[in-house]
Amino acid sequence: MVKPIEYADADAEVRAVFDEIMAVRGVQDVNNFWKYLAHDPVELRSVWDTLRDVMADGALSPEVKELIYVAVSIANGCDYCVASHSAVAAAKGATPDMLNEMRRIVAMASRTNALAVSLRVPVDPQFEG
Amino acid sequence: MVKPIEYADADAEVRAVFDEIMAVRGVQDVNNFWKYLAHDPVELRSVWDTLRDVMADGALSPEVKELIYVAVSIANGCDYCVASHSAVAAAKGATPDMLNEMRRIVAMASRTNALAVSLRVPVDPQFEG
Amino acid sequence: MVKPIEYADADAEVRAVFDEIMAVRGVQDVNNFWKYLAHDPVELRSVWDTLRDVMADGALSPEVKELIYVAVSIANGCDYCVASHSAVAAAKGATPDMLNEMRRIVAMASRTNALAVSLRVPVDPQFEG
Amino acid sequence: MVKPIEYADADAEVRAVFDEIMAVRGVQDVNNFWKYLAHDPVELRSVWDTLRDVMADGALSPEVKELIYVAVSIANGCDYCVASHSAVAAAKGATPDMLNEMRRIVAMASRTNALAVSLRVPVDPQFEG
Amino acid sequence: MVKPIEYADADAEVRAVFDEIMAVRGVQDVNNFWKYLAHDPVELRSVWDTLRDVMADGALSPEVKELIYVAVSIANGCDYCVASHSAVAAAKGATPDMLNEMRRIVAMASRTNALAVSLRVPVDPQFEG
Amino acid sequence: MVKPIEYADADAEVRAVFDEIMAVRGVQDVNNFWKYLAHDPVELRSVWDTLRDVMADGALSPEVKELIYVAVSIANGCDYCVASHSAVAAAKGATPDMLNEMRRIVAMASRTNALAVSLRVPVDPQFEG
Repeated sequence: MVKPIEYADADAEVRAVFDEIMAVRGVQDVNNFWKYLAHDPVELRSVWDTLRDVMADGALSPEVKELIYVAVSIANGCDYCVASHSAVAAAKGATPDMLNEMRRIVAMASRTNALAVSLRVPVDPQFEG
Repeated sequence: MVKPIEYADADAEVRAVFDEIMAVRGVQDVNNFWKYLAHDPVELRSVWDTLRDVMADGALSPEVKELIYVAVSIANGCDYCVASHSAVAAAKGATPDMLNEMRRIVAMASRTNALAVSLRVPVDPQFEG
Repeated sequence: MVKPIEYADADAEVRAVFDEIMAVRGVQDVNNFWKYLAHDPVELRSVWDTLRDVMADGALSPEVKELIYVAVSIANGCDYCVASHSAVAAAKGATPDMLNEMRRIVAMASRTNALAVSLRVPVDPQFEG
Repeated sequence: MVKPIEYADADAEVRAVFDEIMAVRGVQDVNNFWKYLAHDPVELRSVWDTLRDVMADGALSPEVKELIYVAVSIANGCDYCVASHSAVAAAKGATPDMLNEMRRIVAMASRTNALAVSLRVPVDPQFEG
Repeated sequence: MVKPIEYADADAEVRAVFDEIMAVRGVQDVNNFWKYLAHDPVELRSVWDTLRDVMADGALSPEVKELIYVAVSIANGCDYCVASHSAVAAAKGATPDMLNEMRRIVAMASRTNALAVSLRVPVDPQFEG
Repeated sequence: MVKPIEYADADAEVRAVFDEIMAVRGVQDVNNFWKYLAHDPVELRSVWDTLRDVMADGALSPEVKELIYVAVSIANGCDYCVASHSAVAAAKGATPDMLNEMRRIVAMASRTNALAVSLRVPVDPQFEG
């Protein structure tokens, strides 16, 4: 069973990533996700570097990016990811109304996704471009 | 095999829904999804009424709503829905940069979702609230 | 790329399974699924034997069994399986109304599944039994 | 974190839905699903109205409808939904044999779905209609 | 709610399968999976017989077979299966490095799967062969 | 609609990635996946760098890594990924027998995943470690 690695028990390579996460997020400790992933320092570094860049400010606002993240996590059925990113979305400014609207969309998209698959609907020519 | 029902061949119940869709969206014809769903007029009416309300303006902007819709459709693997809602998102104002950022998030969320599941990460107490 | 194996080109082991499928189903040829699976005669035999038993008459009627099969195939996003088992369901007596009701259920279950996951609803004590 | 809303703490809009659910199902309290969904009264009303209609008697019997619901919930990996709808299915008349047969079908459909996807089997012409 | 059936309470049909599992695996008791599945002795027998054959030595080594099993269980989001087969993989010789590499692949495959679906990439002619 | 970007039309940033892919793989052209992803040069660079490292030689052999990749792609239902990585697996040394055994495992894991979810099997204490 993979066990979490706490900062006090981490080597320099892992601590460097933990330090960056805490600095960027302004927190005193990293989430369980990072402590468990620390068993594979190569993947820890790769995931953090990529995630930091993907979630940085851009054409989409930080809270919208988190809402999309939560939406995908719901569709993929990842309970840990739903819990943690719902909290992060709220911390980044997503209001309860925004979260509710996101949930309604995920739910209706899942319903219409199922219908489109069940009816084997061919893509309209105008969408094939 | 379910076949599409064109407006000319539709009964009054189906035509009423088609008319509403075309009016709300400002288009001359409905997409294949609706033509295939028309074989079940009860479901056609229910899906349209709910979708119209869920996707209406609210705390989230129309293009953000469509981006979330596309993100879920990607995660659920619905090709028709990815094709049609990507086009709708662009029509509602989502720029190529926004679409790219959305895709990057869906991809990284799928990667980290898989890692969280594989490591069986327990939810942090602060996320259990 | 896996290519289909036609009866004329099949060896005795594969032909024996094809013969059984045609006899049980009262058809002159087997579907593509079996022709592609024939590249692995061991799996072909195992899948056919199990599927024949699982789909045989029991507490559930044949058409209900096929409707459940289609419902799962929709949820799993298997286009081939949706196409073939929808046709088989109809051939076994599922009416268009039954197919429509099945599709509505798959769609609404997908919607509520997403909501339950998104809200992280704990199982009620009475369901834990 | 979304918290459940109990009847005593609910406003009139939510209580109206809770009252309908209890009346239709002949129960003294609603399940956790509805208490968590009550944070979004608009979605609560929409989901209940649609679900009540979709699961009402029709061409398929109530216990068959619930079995299909459970089958989809299994395929979607929603533990809450599997737990609650398995209980409801039994309450509506699904026998242990029916539940076992449903589970066998979900399992074998998942196996053959994977095979069809892995072999990239093209849809037979007779299923394209 | 399905309850586990312990060896002491099992009938001859179930005990026979339990005995085989313990003999093949060299263990003193069977996992919860088998105890829960024992409520359906027909499915218990079918699953054990097939699984034993599929996981037996062949062109792939036992630990590689288990790693593939875990990878699929992660992608399907089955927590029980991830937990049990990760342990079995280690017991059969998969090292922590192998498990880490498998997890990285599952994560990156999930990321690129999402991208390919989102971009609707057509299959290259050379892969259609 | 996203269109593929051919080498001749690519800018220096994209060509640099294409050049690396062709050099590492010893091929004259890149697959469609990369040509479509080239619309987002940042993601193109990130995905290639990570994938190259993840799939490089390590504790697992190249063909085993590809088999795991295909297995996940099947479970995620990505047709493009199944087609392309099945071909790559064969090119890297996976024999038809290995591919068949991988497919059998994906299929049986999908079947038992569904059963474990349907029976809500609790994780055995020895797997919680």
